[in-house]
Amino acid sequence: MTARMLIDGAPADQVPALDRGLAYGDGLFESIRLVGVVAPLWSRHMRRLSESCERLRIPALDPAQLWREALEVTRGMPQAVVRITVTRGVGERGYTLPVSPQPLRVVAAFAPPQVMDSAYAQGVRMRICAIRLAEQPLLAGMKHLNRLEQVLARAEWDDPAIAEGVLCDSHGRVISATMANLFAVVDGVLLTPALDRCGVAGVGRAEVLTAYPQAQVGELSLDTLLGASEVFLSSSVRGILPVHSLGEQVYVPGVLTRQLQLHWHNLGFSMEQDG
Amino acid sequence: MTARMLIDGAPADQVPALDRGLAYGDGLFESIRLVGVVAPLWSRHMRRLSESCERLRIPALDPAQLWREALEVTRGMPQAVVRITVTRGVGERGYTLPVSPQPLRVVAAFAPPQVMDSAYAQGVRMRICAIRLAEQPLLAGMKHLNRLEQVLARAEWDDPAIAEGVLCDSHGRVISATMANLFAVVDGVLLTPALDRCGVAGVGRAEVLTAYPQAQVGELSLDTLLGASEVFLSSSVRGILPVHSLGEQVYVPGVLTRQLQLHWHNLGFSMEQDG
Repeated sequence: MTARMLIDGAPADQVPALDRGLAYGDGLFESIRLVGVVAPLWSRHMRRLSESCERLRIPALDPAQLWREALEVTRGMPQAVVRITVTRGVGERGYTLPVSPQPLRVVAAFAPPQVMDSAYAQGVRMRICAIRLAEQPLLAGMKHLNRLEQVLARAEWDDPAIAEGVLCDSHGRVISATMANLFAVVDGVLLTPALDRCGVAGVGRAEVLTAYPQAQVGELSLDTLLGASEVFLSSSVRGILPVHSLGEQVYVPGVLTRQLQLHWHNLGFSMEQDG
Repeated sequence: MTARMLIDGAPADQVPALDRGLAYGDGLFESIRLVGVVAPLWSRHMRRLSESCERLRIPALDPAQLWREALEVTRGMPQAVVRITVTRGVGERGYTLPVSPQPLRVVAAFAPPQVMDSAYAQGVRMRICAIRLAEQPLLAGMKHLNRLEQVLARAEWDDPAIAEGVLCDSHGRVISATMANLFAVVDGVLLTPALDRCGVAGVGRAEVLTAYPQAQVGELSLDTLLGASEVFLSSSVRGILPVHSLGEQVYVPGVLTRQLQLHWHNLGFSMEQDG
C-alpha cells in the first residue's frame, strides 16, 4: 500500500490510540476522486461531510483547508483517490461526548482502484448478499466509520469475477451495493432506493439525481430489480458502472446508463483510462 | 487522561492511521476490571473475545500474552480497568478482507470510573433513550467497535444526576442500558432481555446468569420493566448497580439485587471502595 498522508495537517502515518474513531467508530469519511488537480464532485463531498458532522455533533471542518491538504497529498499523481477521515478526536474512556472535542482529520492519497475498460463497456457481475442491513434512521445516509456490515457483506464471496453484491434491508427491500449506490430502469423510469433507514447516500448518487431529475427515489424490491431493463451502480470513485448480471439474470446496458456515463465523462472524469 | 499502553506488546500511544479499526470499526474490545493482580471475570472476557474474533474472522489472540500485558500496564495500580482493543489490522482501501490479516492489539490501563457508595446502596437514576437500536443478528452480542448508537444514546442527556439510559429496539423491546446490561425482577422472576438481534452480551450479565441460573432470558417490554419490583444493571467494570428510578418510576433494591451484589463481592471485587 502506498499512501501519502497528512494528519491534522502534518505528514504522519499514525493516530492516537485513544482516538474515538478507533474506540467507537465515532467519525466520518469521504473517498474523493481526483483527476489531476480537479475533484469534480468536491463540493458534494464537502456538503455531505458538513451535514453529517452536524448530525453527529462533530465540529465542522474548513473545506478550504481540506482542499489544500488534498492537493498536497496527491501532488504529482495524475489520478488519485483521497480519503478524508474525520473523528471526534481523543476522549476519556466511555461514550459521553467530550466537552471540548478536538476533531482529528486524516487526509490520505491512494492510487485509484483498477477498473477494467470492459467493466464500463459491458458491465460487472453481481450477487445478492445474505446479510440484511439493520435499520437505523439516525445513522442512515451518512458515510460514518461504523462499517462492519459492509465488511461482513464483502466477506461473503471471494470470486474475483463478482464485482459487487446487492444489499437488502431486513424487510427485503433493495438498498445498495456494498460500496456503491444502485439504480434500475423499470418501465422506462429510473429508480433508486430511499436511504432514510439504512445505506449510504452516495455523492455519485446525488450527482445522478441532479443530472437526471426525472429519477424516482423510493422502494425497490428484489423482484423489481431482477425485472429491470437496465441496472447500474454509481460511485464517486468508480463512476457509472453498468451491471451485466445479478446471479443468473443478465442485463444489457441501455440508453440511460450510457447517458449518465457520458455525463460523468463531461464532469471531467475519464474513468476509461484506469484499467 | 492517564493511560499506560502497550500496542502489539510495545509501549506506544499511536496506531497506524490505515488500521481497519479506524477505517471501518473493524474490530472488538473488552473493558476488564482488575483488583490488584486479579481480574475475577478474565476468563469470561477471553471467551467472548475469542468467540467474537471467530464470528468476525479475525485471527485469535493468545490469552496468556494478553494477561501478561494487562499486568504490565496496571503494575502498581490497586484498582484498574484494562481496555483491550483488537482490530483486523492495516488493510488496503476497501472492505475486502486482507488475505493475511495482521491483527492489532492495544492494551491500555485506566483508573476505574468513580461510582459513589450511594449508587451501590440506593441505586442510580435512569431515563429512557429516544434512539432505538437497529437489529443486526450478525453483529448482536459482540462488543465490536461500531458503537455510534451508544454514542448517540449517551449524547441524549447531560444531567449528571442521570447515570444511565434504557435502550429499546425498533419494536420497543427493552434491550439494555448504554454501557451495562439490565435485569428486572417481575413476579419474583429475574428477567433479562435476549440479545440475539441487538445489544452487547456483557460479561457481567453472563456471570449473573451463571450465579442465578433461575434467571430467564427473553422479551422484556417497557411496561413490564416499569412494573418490576427490582431493577439492576450489570457491568464487568461497575458490578451490580441497583436502579433507583426510571423517569418517574421509583424502585427499591430488593433481595435479589443484594444477593448478586454479595456474589460480586465474593468474586473478589470490592466496588464499594471506588468512590
